[in-house]
Amino acid sequence: MAQYRMLLEYDGTEYHGWQLQPDRRTLQGVLETALATALRHPVRIAASGRTDAGVHALGQVATFRTEHVIDARELRKSVNALTPPDLAVHEVALVADEFDARRHATARVYEYRIWNQAWRSAFWHRFTWHVPRALDVRAMRFAAAALAGEHDFSAFRASDCDSDSAIRRVIHSGFTEAEGLCVYRVEANAFLKHMVRAIVGTLVEVGAGQRSPEDVAEVLASCDRGRAGQTAPPQGLVLMAVRYA
Amino acid sequence: MAQYRMLLEYDGTEYHGWQLQPDRRTLQGVLETALATALRHPVRIAASGRTDAGVHALGQVATFRTEHVIDARELRKSVNALTPPDLAVHEVALVADEFDARRHATARVYEYRIWNQAWRSAFWHRFTWHVPRALDVRAMRFAAAALAGEHDFSAFRASDCDSDSAIRRVIHSGFTEAEGLCVYRVEANAFLKHMVRAIVGTLVEVGAGQRSPEDVAEVLASCDRGRAGQTAPPQGLVLMAVRYA
Repeated sequence: MAQYRMLLEYDGTEYHGWQLQPDRRTLQGVLETALATALRHPVRIAASGRTDAGVHALGQVATFRTEHVIDARELRKSVNALTPPDLAVHEVALVADEFDARRHATARVYEYRIWNQAWRSAFWHRFTWHVPRALDVRAMRFAAAALAGEHDFSAFRASDCDSDSAIRRVIHSGFTEAEGLCVYRVEANAFLKHMVRAIVGTLVEVGAGQRSPEDVAEVLASCDRGRAGQTAPPQGLVLMAVRYA
Repeated sequence: MAQYRMLLEYDGTEYHGWQLQPDRRTLQGVLETALATALRHPVRIAASGRTDAGVHALGQVATFRTEHVIDARELRKSVNALTPPDLAVHEVALVADEFDARRHATARVYEYRIWNQAWRSAFWHRFTWHVPRALDVRAMRFAAAALAGEHDFSAFRASDCDSDSAIRRVIHSGFTEAEGLCVYRVEANAFLKHMVRAIVGTLVEVGAGQRSPEDVAEVLASCDRGRAGQTAPPQGLVLMAVRYA
């Protein structure tokens, strides 16, 4: 029995998220079906983490096991012929049997894209949150930097988040902007449920002048979800990479 | 009666091209319906040129006339509320009555995106042609440069192209590449039917080593469509801008 690691890319617009659900089109479901067809036996996939409905990935990592001796490049080709255009396998590689995509990940990198123009973008609508108000990116950058470091992120977790601890180590938290697109990039050892989207919702309120940049450090210290901003919509979010030691 | 100019953006994936057709979803059709609803009278739109089925735009220009006194920003807002997410109006502005979006255009800029990796891209699939073979971009750049200048482009026109003359002036023709994306950018006073796609199909054969870079100048000089390469698929093509004197 050998274990394989896949690097995956998907446009999550038309999926009900990563996790298998009966009677719903999910990434895990579509991919398990394609792999089962290619390998001719049932397959269970384990990912580095779930992504929510509508969230995308350029670098999701997932594993599966098979008894067949397979050529990794050939399997990538077969699976890419069996999956729809909005889901693709970049890479398939043999990994050690003890490798665990979720527990062994040392960091995750997400990007959140905001389309910051008065008009909607027809080109970017699947991958951005449209914020028509002018945003002060300098203020957002200042506020975003306050999140770096090890903190209790209870103020930025979903009410139904089931993690035992809310302590996470943020390695990078910053903004870039170009041609109407404002991109928030955040890297942390791990994330709480809806953490990136709650952070972005709060930072956009800073950019719009509805709260001061200094307020974000206070919200973080309060550990009170009620003090943070709204949860930004899912379609702006992309899982860019998962790092392993 | 006043005339207005619109700057339009669209993801052409789910349209049967620009031009109005009975019983088909076209950009002109969807936009005329939205404008008629906003203005409460039938509207006819005239564009700088047609785009084919599946082709996109970031900077299409089109005009319409109305007897109503309108606030351009308010109209943009109304139309963007009445159009689907894959079609957006960036700008509405009053123009001189004699302005003609097609005849007065002095140049058009197109980009064609090639996804040049062994795997499919799930993120870019709506906006790229997937060419899995390794491409020699230096050779393609050399060949592309040979197209600049005023030439008879008969070798790169569709068989049913109805232009009287095949002479066009190419102002820029070149490639850029980054992170798996290879982008051909071409600017000309005007284009023949399928001209950009026939050029790209030919240049990709140069990149794949199936023809020499020098061959492209010979194909151009031959004025023989049979000597050029296949027509590249529509989804990689984007009308970037239309220029006026």
